[in-house]
Amino acid sequence: MNIGFIGLGNMGQAMARNIARAGHQLTVYNRTRSRADELRAEGTRVAGSPYDAAVNAEVLITMLANDEAVEGVIFGTHRAARQEGLGALHGLRAGTVHISMSTISVALSKRLAEAHAAAGQAYIAAPVFGRPDVAAAARLWVVAAGPADHIERCRPVFESISQGMFTVGGEPWTANVVKLAGNFLIASMLEALGEAFALVRKSGVEVHQFLEISNSALFKSPLYETYGSIIADERYEPAGLKLALGLKDVRLALEAAEAAATPMPLASLIRDHMLSAIAHGQGEIDWAGIARVLAENAGLGEPKATPHSMAH
Amino acid sequence: MNIGFIGLGNMGQAMARNIARAGHQLTVYNRTRSRADELRAEGTRVAGSPYDAAVNAEVLITMLANDEAVEGVIFGTHRAARQEGLGALHGLRAGTVHISMSTISVALSKRLAEAHAAAGQAYIAAPVFGRPDVAAAARLWVVAAGPADHIERCRPVFESISQGMFTVGGEPWTANVVKLAGNFLIASMLEALGEAFALVRKSGVEVHQFLEISNSALFKSPLYETYGSIIADERYEPAGLKLALGLKDVRLALEAAEAAATPMPLASLIRDHMLSAIAHGQGEIDWAGIARVLAENAGLGEPKATPHSMAH
Amino acid sequence: MNIGFIGLGNMGQAMARNIARAGHQLTVYNRTRSRADELRAEGTRVAGSPYDAAVNAEVLITMLANDEAVEGVIFGTHRAARQEGLGALHGLRAGTVHISMSTISVALSKRLAEAHAAAGQAYIAAPVFGRPDVAAAARLWVVAAGPADHIERCRPVFESISQGMFTVGGEPWTANVVKLAGNFLIASMLEALGEAFALVRKSGVEVHQFLEISNSALFKSPLYETYGSIIADERYEPAGLKLALGLKDVRLALEAAEAAATPMPLASLIRDHMLSAIAHGQGEIDWAGIARVLAENAGLGEPKATPHSMAH
Amino acid sequence: MNIGFIGLGNMGQAMARNIARAGHQLTVYNRTRSRADELRAEGTRVAGSPYDAAVNAEVLITMLANDEAVEGVIFGTHRAARQEGLGALHGLRAGTVHISMSTISVALSKRLAEAHAAAGQAYIAAPVFGRPDVAAAARLWVVAAGPADHIERCRPVFESISQGMFTVGGEPWTANVVKLAGNFLIASMLEALGEAFALVRKSGVEVHQFLEISNSALFKSPLYETYGSIIADERYEPAGLKLALGLKDVRLALEAAEAAATPMPLASLIRDHMLSAIAHGQGEIDWAGIARVLAENAGLGEPKATPHSMAH
Repeated sequence: MNIGFIGLGNMGQAMARNIARAGHQLTVYNRTRSRADELRAEGTRVAGSPYDAAVNAEVLITMLANDEAVEGVIFGTHRAARQEGLGALHGLRAGTVHISMSTISVALSKRLAEAHAAAGQAYIAAPVFGRPDVAAAARLWVVAAGPADHIERCRPVFESISQGMFTVGGEPWTANVVKLAGNFLIASMLEALGEAFALVRKSGVEVHQFLEISNSALFKSPLYETYGSIIADERYEPAGLKLALGLKDVRLALEAAEAAATPMPLASLIRDHMLSAIAHGQGEIDWAGIARVLAENAGLGEPKATPHSMAH
Repeated sequence: MNIGFIGLGNMGQAMARNIARAGHQLTVYNRTRSRADELRAEGTRVAGSPYDAAVNAEVLITMLANDEAVEGVIFGTHRAARQEGLGALHGLRAGTVHISMSTISVALSKRLAEAHAAAGQAYIAAPVFGRPDVAAAARLWVVAAGPADHIERCRPVFESISQGMFTVGGEPWTANVVKLAGNFLIASMLEALGEAFALVRKSGVEVHQFLEISNSALFKSPLYETYGSIIADERYEPAGLKLALGLKDVRLALEAAEAAATPMPLASLIRDHMLSAIAHGQGEIDWAGIARVLAENAGLGEPKATPHSMAH
Repeated sequence: MNIGFIGLGNMGQAMARNIARAGHQLTVYNRTRSRADELRAEGTRVAGSPYDAAVNAEVLITMLANDEAVEGVIFGTHRAARQEGLGALHGLRAGTVHISMSTISVALSKRLAEAHAAAGQAYIAAPVFGRPDVAAAARLWVVAAGPADHIERCRPVFESISQGMFTVGGEPWTANVVKLAGNFLIASMLEALGEAFALVRKSGVEVHQFLEISNSALFKSPLYETYGSIIADERYEPAGLKLALGLKDVRLALEAAEAAATPMPLASLIRDHMLSAIAHGQGEIDWAGIARVLAENAGLGEPKATPHSMAH
Repeated sequence: MNIGFIGLGNMGQAMARNIARAGHQLTVYNRTRSRADELRAEGTRVAGSPYDAAVNAEVLITMLANDEAVEGVIFGTHRAARQEGLGALHGLRAGTVHISMSTISVALSKRLAEAHAAAGQAYIAAPVFGRPDVAAAARLWVVAAGPADHIERCRPVFESISQGMFTVGGEPWTANVVKLAGNFLIASMLEALGEAFALVRKSGVEVHQFLEISNSALFKSPLYETYGSIIADERYEPAGLKLALGLKDVRLALEAAEAAATPMPLASLIRDHMLSAIAHGQGEIDWAGIARVLAENAGLGEPKATPHSMAH
């Protein structure tokens, strides 16, 4: 298929590369040109604007950092796009489909569905689970929602980047809820581990051993192992997901929950701890670093470090 | 070895049976005599009092529901024991060891260590992880702390009931902290799942599918699978661990944390939700039923049920 | 002075009337025309659009329910205004001033400051404290921020509606922060009273007596007396401030706090309880009705009522 | 009347002095003898033990720091009392009354009621509201519960120390609930002010001005004025009520609430912040110092100080 792909961050570049390898005709766009140039060297066409990336596409995929970036490239409010006053939405022909794979708000997902419908285009929300190394290995998990026929037609694209795919329904935004709820579960695990580690540390128990015990006897989960080790080692840099972006995800979950009149007090708790981390200059470390706030609240370790004091 | 065993609840009876099967000389005591009689039929000696269970033991094991029960049998404040005014502590000879496997408070564990030391006896805290079916299969996990030589000497006993064992240090109470922190991690998972399920349900996503997605893509954990299914099915009876007992464990974690000057706001949150469950007559359902409070807070389902409305 | 006034709700109409009584030339606009007609009968000019209300004004005052309403009338995205494509911003001449008295977000207040500056107009944020009866008695409190000379020039206007006025600085949005922080303090009092009342009720103490004790011995505050009586009487209708609007204020406080990297866990807690109230159809009762959630969480009273069950 | 009085702390000494001034025959006991000697110089009899203070009393009053101290003097587990193996309970004659004015747990209050009833003595719980200066001025508020005839008989004693008195019922422990719920309301005010101050400080608003605004326009409460000024000035020493004792009161409220199956999430929140203060060596500052934790969580001011860094 002829595919436009916008957003070549750590995740997007890996995904685009795997789509190209699967034999699709790929045209990519990225605000920072150098990221696109790496793919060009591998034979991928590079577009000069979101509009340009969309204009010949049967399928347009976006994989961007946040709502603002997606609005920018789709509606043309993006700085680069402004030069021509047009966004990808205006480039797409009728009958094509936009697959939004970014972690965005439920509100924006609804707005995109309306805008594409008005333009005679289809819209699928298909956020993914997995970190950059998983994306590189084409082992992501895709959660898709939207018109069933379009999802079916795009199945080869999803398969080229993932080890599995779930279809959750006809309303695209429900896939975004699933993604946000999933990320909330991870953040909850981080909060729980952070509090438990603070308790056992203050009781003189070695945290690596506690992690081994709780994961052997209870969870048997690679995710607990991975994140638990990061916290036990206090190895928050380089960040897998930056704490400030993790806060964004928790905020989006809270907004979705507010729209659904659903209290999520644990999400509120996590948000407050992440805000405290950010107030202490820790927005760039891994979001597992929420455990640093919890340790510090218990009087453990140094006072919350400034970014400088964490430098190597 | 000559072993006394006090406390034949769902967990204790299975553990005692496995110890007997491993070839040890077992004398059991249980307040409710009928539970002990089942073991007697298998060739185990049954004692008439905690004192009697301890008097010939090289090793005394207690596996009871809470602090009060342990204090009762050890210090002789137990009703049955009062008839003779003596507890197991007074029956044990010098040089023997008491292995406390119950989930008890850090404060009581410290008090037991002092009392046994004063009596020339050793004391090991060795709480276990695992539900009754795991105990029956001799597949528990043991977390032991106390004098290393005594732990080593008792290793065959531990091996007869478990698939693995961790030794966390010389201070017995630290094993109790590990047990309480581990249970807190489980309770945190329940809280997180309960909130996430409320959000996705109100968004029209099927919770079993959400569970499958999050466990496939993220946790890959049998514990998430087991508890997630209980919550998705709203299958809170019969209870594995009763909510009122789960609240006890969370309270003990909070007490241990307060003694260590460690805030655990997530534990506080869980406690408050469990209290709300109990205020609505739900203390006897499984502790995963905390999710019922979270669903109801989001306006889902019927009003919090009274015990009658849950009857079959 | 020649004053335009937009927004004739319970608060706005009383304020506009007092401004007219002080001798100013008033032109009012309200989306629902009948509210304006009441003032017309008293000799006030009624404008047909926000633009029309602004075009001859030296001072434009807005007193509206939320951000959306203010954006509508000022930027012309309001439905009525759209007919002519213009908002009050376009009607105001250079050198005039817009006084925004609504409880709006810090973000919108910043945006208004920029937009008015770009148009050569001044902008003052001057939210007020007080309920409708206080507004009617011209006994409000005004918290103003913005250019000092304009605030000084408008002092007679402020005096016509208030018993006192505070000037908090040159940045208009800081007055909005003060308003939101003040409302947060009230909401915190409601939460605290609700929890305390639940405890004493379950202990068999009469809540009116508890209120009398705590206000006599501790707070000596008319606000505690007023709100405490509402809660003790469970007299949540008619609403002074509707719970759904109270939630809006708490959300705006949380947004301002997030922008300032300030955790406000008590605000989060209140938000979650208000969401639970709304999930049970209680958005239209007084925001003191958050206490109903707290009572119900303790198993007190009937299950959270649906709107119908509260009907008279 | 012939009155025994045990506990001459800052509160107790002032209360005892006012009782003596009202013409009653007073016998005092205090663990630290020098405090008692000050009263002896004023003509008061000083007892050598709690037993001795009780033996001739018609009314015994206790005003002590916590449960442990009350248990010590009443049941004779106090170190000094142990020398003779007797407590005040054993000294009191049948028909006399013990008035417990300390802030103690509901559980202990129930136990005292039982013990005195078994000894043929009456028991009144009559905790007081007011700080030491208020006690010195005989302007306390008394909240009494217990047998009505004994309360009536003791009215002159209560009047000698207070400006007003409330009788809440026949069950003594309900007066303790009222006291704990009242202290919870104060702590909630501290939490709310701390969070609001953090927000306005980070927004560049002067906190003293914010306090003046919110108390003028909203609360009009001397208590807000007093505590708000302490927080605005960061004047946490000398402590009126030490934070560690404030934590005790919040814990007792939570225990009472748990016994009544009442969630109090705001109390839990306060507890966690107080624990964080204590983890940073701030247990001896005024409990209003909880605001220091909230400021620090927002990145304000220095890192949480160690006790040394606060030294003069």
